[in-house]
Amino acid sequence: MTQQETIRVAIAGYGNLGRSVEAIVGAQRDMELVAIFSRRDSLETASRVIPAADAPAHADEIDVLFLCLGSATDIPEQAPGFAEHFTTVDTYDNHHLIPAHRAAMDAAARRGGRLAVVATGWDPGLFSLNRVLAGALFPAPQQHTFWGTGVSQGHSDAVRRIAGVRKAVQYTIPSGEAIEAAKRGEAAELRATDAHIRDVYVVADPGEEDRIEREIRTLPDYFVGYDTRVSFIDDAEFDARHTGMPHGGHVITSGDLNGSHSAVEFSLELGRNPDFTAACQVAYGRAAARLAAAGETGARTVLEIPPYLLSPTGLDDLVKGYV
Amino acid sequence: MTQQETIRVAIAGYGNLGRSVEAIVGAQRDMELVAIFSRRDSLETASRVIPAADAPAHADEIDVLFLCLGSATDIPEQAPGFAEHFTTVDTYDNHHLIPAHRAAMDAAARRGGRLAVVATGWDPGLFSLNRVLAGALFPAPQQHTFWGTGVSQGHSDAVRRIAGVRKAVQYTIPSGEAIEAAKRGEAAELRATDAHIRDVYVVADPGEEDRIEREIRTLPDYFVGYDTRVSFIDDAEFDARHTGMPHGGHVITSGDLNGSHSAVEFSLELGRNPDFTAACQVAYGRAAARLAAAGETGARTVLEIPPYLLSPTGLDDLVKGYV
Repeated sequence: MTQQETIRVAIAGYGNLGRSVEAIVGAQRDMELVAIFSRRDSLETASRVIPAADAPAHADEIDVLFLCLGSATDIPEQAPGFAEHFTTVDTYDNHHLIPAHRAAMDAAARRGGRLAVVATGWDPGLFSLNRVLAGALFPAPQQHTFWGTGVSQGHSDAVRRIAGVRKAVQYTIPSGEAIEAAKRGEAAELRATDAHIRDVYVVADPGEEDRIEREIRTLPDYFVGYDTRVSFIDDAEFDARHTGMPHGGHVITSGDLNGSHSAVEFSLELGRNPDFTAACQVAYGRAAARLAAAGETGARTVLEIPPYLLSPTGLDDLVKGYV
Repeated sequence: MTQQETIRVAIAGYGNLGRSVEAIVGAQRDMELVAIFSRRDSLETASRVIPAADAPAHADEIDVLFLCLGSATDIPEQAPGFAEHFTTVDTYDNHHLIPAHRAAMDAAARRGGRLAVVATGWDPGLFSLNRVLAGALFPAPQQHTFWGTGVSQGHSDAVRRIAGVRKAVQYTIPSGEAIEAAKRGEAAELRATDAHIRDVYVVADPGEEDRIEREIRTLPDYFVGYDTRVSFIDDAEFDARHTGMPHGGHVITSGDLNGSHSAVEFSLELGRNPDFTAACQVAYGRAAARLAAAGETGARTVLEIPPYLLSPTGLDDLVKGYV
């Protein structure tokens, strides 16, 4: 495949991530969506839908398959099967099981003579890359990852279980002071409760606000010890402003070099988590297509991929315009 | 070369950068400094010094040669000669001539069967990598690079030429408002004068402060139109606080994805510019040694190098600990 050719892609799974990948592939000048593989009978999409069980029969029509499946059970169960037949890119995000997933995908991809890029997205993914890149610069790096501003599903659920709460969302906000301490290399002793602020928006039964706020603040593990902010709002404001999926975070690495102190920061402010995760996955799909076309097989992490392969622009033009 | 083996390195050139590389190599667990090549007769160093003219005779003793030479004339004149005999890593930073430098180094390295990593450091270097990485995520990215907080030599010189100025330094500070506008994707029309603040510290002849401040503020091109801050300080404070080489900057990339807006930021706060540049060069030296050991030849930019090659830690451990 030369750079001018179109990369023929497909999507397996059609939840939030699959829909974002569909839209973002549509905005690429060098990609064409061939099909969506799904186990469901009918999907609300104008794209061609093929039953997942029939996927292998279409392997020759597809350069890259984006696995938009859940990490909890779908990826472990289904991804190796796809990797035997397709060049795949996944966003598996169960950090401590990534080595096992990588091994399973490597074996499956090699069996089929295919390439599998695993654990793309932003964390794991771009954050992983920056942790390794920045960590390699210092003999004794201090490194901290902060998450947010973004919705914590677990904390939101905990608040929703309190009597009298009609709707609730909890945003995790990294502490600006903690980030500055991390840049100075003074965050080694940082406690979890000092690193993040917990910002809660609640729609409550009238008259129950004081009790609800007290119950939130005293929930052990979830809120005790944290700088917790509770705001009661009405239904209309909640629906208008608090149903999105913003997220983001910071990877801060600092250390001493020959007596001077330096800090490296990589930060994301994401309007909608699945859209950005999909954008990362699609960019690594471009790299996967190129590596597969060059005859490479087996599993690859983001750490192993030369950055220029992510861009639709050719290397010479990138050197001229961006280096 | 397996990962456990020591990388034998040398340095060509012994200015600020060469001295920083010497110190930072000394802090690496997998590197050993064999020699410094210099045209000068005597250097103040405990390291072994070899006349630059004798360098080729020592090629077999050295895995990687760090070219710590000036970009103005030394690199164009001397770097290709070194690249015929050694695996080299340079920090050539004349942005618009990098394609020509890359071509010259590629030809020289191929003639000698060697590998040359060109234009490392942070800009070009880490900033280049992040411009390409973040730019590849958006169909229509907006991208801005801000520099500072750091000393601008040109602006400092301009102030020092004003009558009555004994000592002066000018720090360029990126505007926080401009950075936020860039993250929102609203910096397309940003004027240079709005992107940076100019912070000047002056030791002046007594009684001349008002005139000097007026002359600074009215210097065309340098200060007119900028948010310029002028502070008069005494000699002792200048020497204590304003003779360092801090620098840094921000690469901000933002864009729309499927209707949502996201922003990617890569930022550096550098205690001492040559130390951090050296740290980047040394990390890319590790990658150069590994690529050369794998038999690769020719020139490589930072865009072509898989990130894990920068780290002294092995790939499996990186995947386990950082992905």
